[in-house]
Amino acid sequence: MKESAVKKIAVLTSGGDSPGMNAALRAVVRTANYYNIECYGVREGYNGLISNDFLKMGARSVKNIINQGGTILKSARSTEFRTKEGRQRAYDNCVKLGIDGLVCIGGDGTFTGAKIFSEEFGIRVIGIPGTIDNDIFGTDNTIGYDTALNTAMDAIDKIRDTATSHNRVFFVEVMGRDAGFIALNSGLATGALDILIPEKKDSTDDLFEKFRKAEKTGKASSIVVVAEGEKLANVYDLAEKTKQIFPDYDIRVAVLGHMQRGGSPSCADRVLASRLGYGAVVGLMDGQNNVMAGMRSNDVVYTPIEEAIKKHNEINKDLMLISEILAI
Amino acid sequence: MKESAVKKIAVLTSGGDSPGMNAALRAVVRTANYYNIECYGVREGYNGLISNDFLKMGARSVKNIINQGGTILKSARSTEFRTKEGRQRAYDNCVKLGIDGLVCIGGDGTFTGAKIFSEEFGIRVIGIPGTIDNDIFGTDNTIGYDTALNTAMDAIDKIRDTATSHNRVFFVEVMGRDAGFIALNSGLATGALDILIPEKKDSTDDLFEKFRKAEKTGKASSIVVVAEGEKLANVYDLAEKTKQIFPDYDIRVAVLGHMQRGGSPSCADRVLASRLGYGAVVGLMDGQNNVMAGMRSNDVVYTPIEEAIKKHNEINKDLMLISEILAI
Amino acid sequence: MKESAVKKIAVLTSGGDSPGMNAALRAVVRTANYYNIECYGVREGYNGLISNDFLKMGARSVKNIINQGGTILKSARSTEFRTKEGRQRAYDNCVKLGIDGLVCIGGDGTFTGAKIFSEEFGIRVIGIPGTIDNDIFGTDNTIGYDTALNTAMDAIDKIRDTATSHNRVFFVEVMGRDAGFIALNSGLATGALDILIPEKKDSTDDLFEKFRKAEKTGKASSIVVVAEGEKLANVYDLAEKTKQIFPDYDIRVAVLGHMQRGGSPSCADRVLASRLGYGAVVGLMDGQNNVMAGMRSNDVVYTPIEEAIKKHNEINKDLMLISEILAI
Amino acid sequence: MKESAVKKIAVLTSGGDSPGMNAALRAVVRTANYYNIECYGVREGYNGLISNDFLKMGARSVKNIINQGGTILKSARSTEFRTKEGRQRAYDNCVKLGIDGLVCIGGDGTFTGAKIFSEEFGIRVIGIPGTIDNDIFGTDNTIGYDTALNTAMDAIDKIRDTATSHNRVFFVEVMGRDAGFIALNSGLATGALDILIPEKKDSTDDLFEKFRKAEKTGKASSIVVVAEGEKLANVYDLAEKTKQIFPDYDIRVAVLGHMQRGGSPSCADRVLASRLGYGAVVGLMDGQNNVMAGMRSNDVVYTPIEEAIKKHNEINKDLMLISEILAI
Repeated sequence: MKESAVKKIAVLTSGGDSPGMNAALRAVVRTANYYNIECYGVREGYNGLISNDFLKMGARSVKNIINQGGTILKSARSTEFRTKEGRQRAYDNCVKLGIDGLVCIGGDGTFTGAKIFSEEFGIRVIGIPGTIDNDIFGTDNTIGYDTALNTAMDAIDKIRDTATSHNRVFFVEVMGRDAGFIALNSGLATGALDILIPEKKDSTDDLFEKFRKAEKTGKASSIVVVAEGEKLANVYDLAEKTKQIFPDYDIRVAVLGHMQRGGSPSCADRVLASRLGYGAVVGLMDGQNNVMAGMRSNDVVYTPIEEAIKKHNEINKDLMLISEILAI
Repeated sequence: MKESAVKKIAVLTSGGDSPGMNAALRAVVRTANYYNIECYGVREGYNGLISNDFLKMGARSVKNIINQGGTILKSARSTEFRTKEGRQRAYDNCVKLGIDGLVCIGGDGTFTGAKIFSEEFGIRVIGIPGTIDNDIFGTDNTIGYDTALNTAMDAIDKIRDTATSHNRVFFVEVMGRDAGFIALNSGLATGALDILIPEKKDSTDDLFEKFRKAEKTGKASSIVVVAEGEKLANVYDLAEKTKQIFPDYDIRVAVLGHMQRGGSPSCADRVLASRLGYGAVVGLMDGQNNVMAGMRSNDVVYTPIEEAIKKHNEINKDLMLISEILAI
Repeated sequence: MKESAVKKIAVLTSGGDSPGMNAALRAVVRTANYYNIECYGVREGYNGLISNDFLKMGARSVKNIINQGGTILKSARSTEFRTKEGRQRAYDNCVKLGIDGLVCIGGDGTFTGAKIFSEEFGIRVIGIPGTIDNDIFGTDNTIGYDTALNTAMDAIDKIRDTATSHNRVFFVEVMGRDAGFIALNSGLATGALDILIPEKKDSTDDLFEKFRKAEKTGKASSIVVVAEGEKLANVYDLAEKTKQIFPDYDIRVAVLGHMQRGGSPSCADRVLASRLGYGAVVGLMDGQNNVMAGMRSNDVVYTPIEEAIKKHNEINKDLMLISEILAI
Repeated sequence: MKESAVKKIAVLTSGGDSPGMNAALRAVVRTANYYNIECYGVREGYNGLISNDFLKMGARSVKNIINQGGTILKSARSTEFRTKEGRQRAYDNCVKLGIDGLVCIGGDGTFTGAKIFSEEFGIRVIGIPGTIDNDIFGTDNTIGYDTALNTAMDAIDKIRDTATSHNRVFFVEVMGRDAGFIALNSGLATGALDILIPEKKDSTDDLFEKFRKAEKTGKASSIVVVAEGEKLANVYDLAEKTKQIFPDYDIRVAVLGHMQRGGSPSCADRVLASRLGYGAVVGLMDGQNNVMAGMRSNDVVYTPIEEAIKKHNEINKDLMLISEILAI
């Protein structure tokens, strides 16, 4: 193997946490350890870079965390890192410690920070996509997305039990501020009557039409899954508008909320996190810089961070059609 | 065995559904079948009695439902049954079919209806406590309560992952309109900093004092579990008031909602439901009337329905103290 | 409050581990902390007493463990503690450290050791029943039993899916060397055709009779749950004998094994463990000695350890009858 | 849309069942219904074709099954279908009913039967890969694989709790007769010390070397995950050989068994099954024949059945390396 481009790296988790961040962290630390790269954990995201909160990490520092939700390094959104002064202090701390590579686990915001930091100071950075929203280009799935899907699905399965028992209509809000991946997939998986996501133009007319059609086919209860970022209306307003048109309906609202961010990661997420954590360190060693390690068709690929931020995974149009056909 | 006091019984589920109702229903139907009592299911609670919606049930009618949440007979709250005319029609339908015993699975409201019906028309009724709230006197646990506890706990465990990663404060609302059992037990089980329930007098001063104490002991994130029926304030108002006093806190709210009513019942709930379903039929056969079958210290006991409605299980005071001591 | 009978206590987990041991440990440590009793953890059960492996524990030592299976103090069966010399060294270490009270979390074997130790050296001991088998007298449930029941039930539910799809017969072995509690309750909860436990006399004739009866009622697949300690035969032999009589049956065997000992504890187990951990410390402070803290009818009670070991909870005979009636 | 190549189709599930078969079935039936193709379910796989066990299915026939493990059509391995006579009768029944397309959900054996049947009689067939083993070429994942991975992982997580508490070594057998996918991925996800799979040449020397290395790094407990089809030895023999070399080790064996085939399907499996069920019907309508509908890089693709059977997905070599590096 040729000489590594990095000798001493730091790793941090930033932005909204997602299940599997710990598994990714474990992979980064142990891969570094295996290749004799020194590795430091940074606490509370970019804040820790600024406040000099580094933590030497060895193979045993990350034991028993592969199955834990959250992130043992903690996460934060850093306003100070958005300033030139903040980033300068962060860089000075890195220089002091001799850090020559940085692994940033997080989403859009995390990557934007990483990109600027790298471009300003020339420090090598590599991103790992950790967010439940799956809204990062350059990877089929982001870390935490599969777990969040299962959490949302399990909750909606439970809601369906009571919806069916009472012939009720439920509007269920799932996470996804700009992206409808969780809504579309969890809705398809639970036989939702309709799925409202920011990526398509929805109308109450279409929704109400579906209710009428469902009545005809004898469907006595219905779930409508709505992404957090849906532009038509939020779940409460949708419930109210529906009640006005269908006064006989027994309508309820459920907002699944932050439980979708936690929990022990699924097998797919642990494997994805392990592979990307490994891929990030090996990428840095190979001289990669300002890129994100992602998984495409079962292979690790490196995408320029700029692209990962700017482009977006498209919602699969087939999926929308299929969900309509199957939710009769 | 002496002659059975009933020959043909009907069973219904009414009020809010709870996990384990199907298991109770299965036990009623199969016990009746075993003792050669004819058994009818009534659809949608008391509404089905009124609309003559009876369904002959045999041993195979209830196969593969012991593990299903909800109720295959469906449930409803019946306004018509609150009128004398409604009950008269219900009774006429029972007479026409020859029903001489009625098993009513549900909570407070269900039992009130059963009691009046029995007293007005002399038809034998027996209640089975099916509600997640555990607010029925005459049984250590109601059917569905244990499952709901685990559902709430699992959700709060997940929320804790993200709370810890971000040093956040979460106000989590769990079900329980008049009773704090779910809040107290799920809060204790998840190490909640504070637990607010309708049974005790809470104050924001006490709550804020706990936040201050937690800061001193180095607790960086906190969960406060609040029963739906808490009188002090709801979770949104609590969050706002806390923010005013502790402006630095990163505060979030989660309302667990109806998922607590669904899901595959826990082992304890399936066993409880099976025993009470059996106990209800055997009780009717033995001449019991206007009572509820409950479980106390691992034995089936019969409590007058009137008592079951009027009295209440007390919150265990030790539990409150213990939750305070342990959530340091 | 009168003066505490103990000033410095130690706590250990011993024997087979069970889910909730950590929750009990947390409760012991934090209750001691609250009442200003010094508290030490002992590693690897009685072995740690002998090898002087004590660990000072404060409120933060037990954070984030209430939801963890296993035991952070580790457990072991100690052969050395069965010798007088071993116990003498254990006692000497306690004296050196000033330990005047010992909390022993475990089962039969653990309690036998505790009793002898206390009687020989006069050191105060109190037991907490932590075992999945539920075979300890003096408490309605042991810590870990409820979780193990749910683990076994979930596994059998999954097995039923495939049994039903293939019209198969499954013999499923669950844990329980001398006690059939897990078998009986998980079997009842999953609609097992038959349940074989050491507490009753089983015969293959009875079993085969049930298969014949099931055929008549149209039951196409069957689960037979067998306790580990069943005397008639083990699951493999039962499968073979059944195949000889019913050569057309497609028979499979499943041994659930050690997964039943692990996993995040259920809500009931966390609450039970918290109450008994609290009860044990308060009991020691009140002067209790050579007793076990248990839960009966929702109250903490203290039973002489001798009784807890010698007597046994009886299998509820109703349950056997009910399981037969319901598994038609 | 051009005219459909099929007017009346039948669907069957065959071979070992897998979670998500019901979701696939639901998708086939509802897609057919949507496009006005008549649809029949065949009971018990190819046996039902031979015994003329067809079942007309409409949109409501498949309600509430998307979340159910197993297959409501039941599955079987048919010896009669391996004979020319059997297949002739099957074909005659299809002709009688007017079936002009057949959807076969299953694995290798199922597809072999489908291929022969199609080639012999010219009836259109399309396969859907339903097997937990993931050993089918032409699709990134088979239906049921993701669920089985999570089931295996959850069980191993529980086993780890007790392994860690007792400093034990566990040999855990997971399913996979010819393929190590479940072993490799569940082993990676649970931090297994070693993973033994049929695709690579294993030796006890390598295994023992890993034990020695683990001792040095202070790893006190270990999990070794072994695929059912591992050629070196089975778990019992491995345990015995290890005991001979490391007599101090406290070694246990766990065979996870058939629970891996059951359970409510994961979100990924429900979505995959829905898409492939849709893709199969649309494929038949478009004139596809003797192919399998699979998913590659998030797109439905059709692979000749012959290829699906003969070729095999390769185990990712990176994964083996990563699992070694991370399980330090």
